[in-house]
Amino acid sequence: MRIFSKGLLPALLAGPLLPLGLHAQEAAVTPNGVVAAAPASDWKPIDPADLMVMDLAPDAAGKARRVVIQLIPAPFSQGWTENMRKLVAARWYDGIAVVRVQDNYVVQWGDPNSEDEAPDTNGDTARAKPLPGRLEVLAPGDYTAAASALPEDVNGANADAYAARTGFVAGWPIAGDEKASWPIHCYGTVGVGRSMSPDTGTGAELYAVIGQAPRQLDRNIAVVGRVIAGMEHLSSLPRGPGIMGFYTSEADRTPILSVQLGNEVANLPGFEYLATDSASFARYRASRANRKDGFYDVPAGGVDICNVPVPIRQASS
Amino acid sequence: MRIFSKGLLPALLAGPLLPLGLHAQEAAVTPNGVVAAAPASDWKPIDPADLMVMDLAPDAAGKARRVVIQLIPAPFSQGWTENMRKLVAARWYDGIAVVRVQDNYVVQWGDPNSEDEAPDTNGDTARAKPLPGRLEVLAPGDYTAAASALPEDVNGANADAYAARTGFVAGWPIAGDEKASWPIHCYGTVGVGRSMSPDTGTGAELYAVIGQAPRQLDRNIAVVGRVIAGMEHLSSLPRGPGIMGFYTSEADRTPILSVQLGNEVANLPGFEYLATDSASFARYRASRANRKDGFYDVPAGGVDICNVPVPIRQASS
Repeated sequence: MRIFSKGLLPALLAGPLLPLGLHAQEAAVTPNGVVAAAPASDWKPIDPADLMVMDLAPDAAGKARRVVIQLIPAPFSQGWTENMRKLVAARWYDGIAVVRVQDNYVVQWGDPNSEDEAPDTNGDTARAKPLPGRLEVLAPGDYTAAASALPEDVNGANADAYAARTGFVAGWPIAGDEKASWPIHCYGTVGVGRSMSPDTGTGAELYAVIGQAPRQLDRNIAVVGRVIAGMEHLSSLPRGPGIMGFYTSEADRTPILSVQLGNEVANLPGFEYLATDSASFARYRASRANRKDGFYDVPAGGVDICNVPVPIRQASS
Repeated sequence: MRIFSKGLLPALLAGPLLPLGLHAQEAAVTPNGVVAAAPASDWKPIDPADLMVMDLAPDAAGKARRVVIQLIPAPFSQGWTENMRKLVAARWYDGIAVVRVQDNYVVQWGDPNSEDEAPDTNGDTARAKPLPGRLEVLAPGDYTAAASALPEDVNGANADAYAARTGFVAGWPIAGDEKASWPIHCYGTVGVGRSMSPDTGTGAELYAVIGQAPRQLDRNIAVVGRVIAGMEHLSSLPRGPGIMGFYTSEADRTPILSVQLGNEVANLPGFEYLATDSASFARYRASRANRKDGFYDVPAGGVDICNVPVPIRQASS
């Protein structure tokens, strides 16, 4: 789009970097402008121990491909994230691969020799990696947390087809009703692959959303995190030619060299998120619902919760 | 996801191919099952004259990449689609390129030498292609049609954050209120790039949505069509390293060899869509809102309109 002519780019991308105060708040009406104007105190650090750093094999040009995944905090999906920490500690993920890319749906990775990851091809189940011991066995009831985990006064989104209430809790999009609350599948969300219910998966096979939010998976599958850097290394992978986007030849799979926790990785940049209970976030969300600049004539007046990505940035060093 | 173990695949993918009738309708409760059970009379042909066939340069392995775009029917965006037909007739699109890929947003193509398509790089504006004459100049008022174009009794979707009403008209997702109706930006939607309002673009630069539905663009930009085949050739392109996903070197751009109307292309398969005013479509939509099979435990009870992609298939020859 020529939203994208030279003159407009600075305003659209960074927004005016004005001194703080009421006038700045009025001027910074674009989403990026609001984010750029947020005071440092509205940015919260992400603990490196809550990051999974997944290094894919280099691309065809030899360029490194690093994907950084933030694990979801309590009270959501803690059993699965604990399993994933055990799998990282056992170096179990090292050497597995991206086995499936289905357009407008998910990228999935796991052990190519698991029967589950190679439904129509060349997996060698005799060579499947044994899982480490002491993985928790979770039940579908663990997909949700107490309703109170989504307070009524959080920064909510607008009308939602899937849940009575939605809002943001500690930097994450959450849905709920009078009985429970649960994390939401948006673009970049990471979840736990599983077989038929009531199996809930161990965390040994994971997927990331690369299309329209598949909210029908909410409460039916464990949301364990989100991609906060390197998403393009997953979303631009070739779609698989097989059934449901599975790759049909080993050569098409992208190897995963290693998965480490962020605090195990030297020189990993720090990451911060915009506190979702801050005034800056409230303004950001409002500006996503009602775009006001020289490009937009008709503000929507509302916004889907998955169209309000929580701003995340690298901390200045 | 191990929704994807061998045993489950046939049921998930094709659904039971049962004889028609009440029992079959009850049994065919998955979306794919409903679609597979739809009678031939519920499928409508897409006129090849309403297709734009865009052939990208072959991929690195020499494989052809064909993208098929269906133009939106009246009463929506007719001025722009008429311009696009003139641009095709003038062979204006032949030799342009994909110039921008922004993750979770859009793939954009146009003339690399236009100032608008190369904001920070190597476009040679002196070599920009002149547009053919007699292109219509459209106004923002043309983004919408009469409210009556979205009848109240169409197959509607559920709660929507962006519009008072949504539904499907002649195979397309449409939003509306008491004053107007307009087409919706979903995954795969094709729209017309433009500069600052009140410019509305000519149709010489186009984009396709490759992420979460950017519904804030509705009524602010012209929706002219959707990708019905070859979407993966656009969505899996490398994201651009420049500002807003623009490519910063000519070598990164994907050339567009030619764009032809479907009726100009030899041996193009026929395409059909599931009539959105059919009982099959109503069942399909209901099944998208309430998944019922061995995988899902908790049906959502609703579905976003962009999560109800209109089924399109190649006609059997």
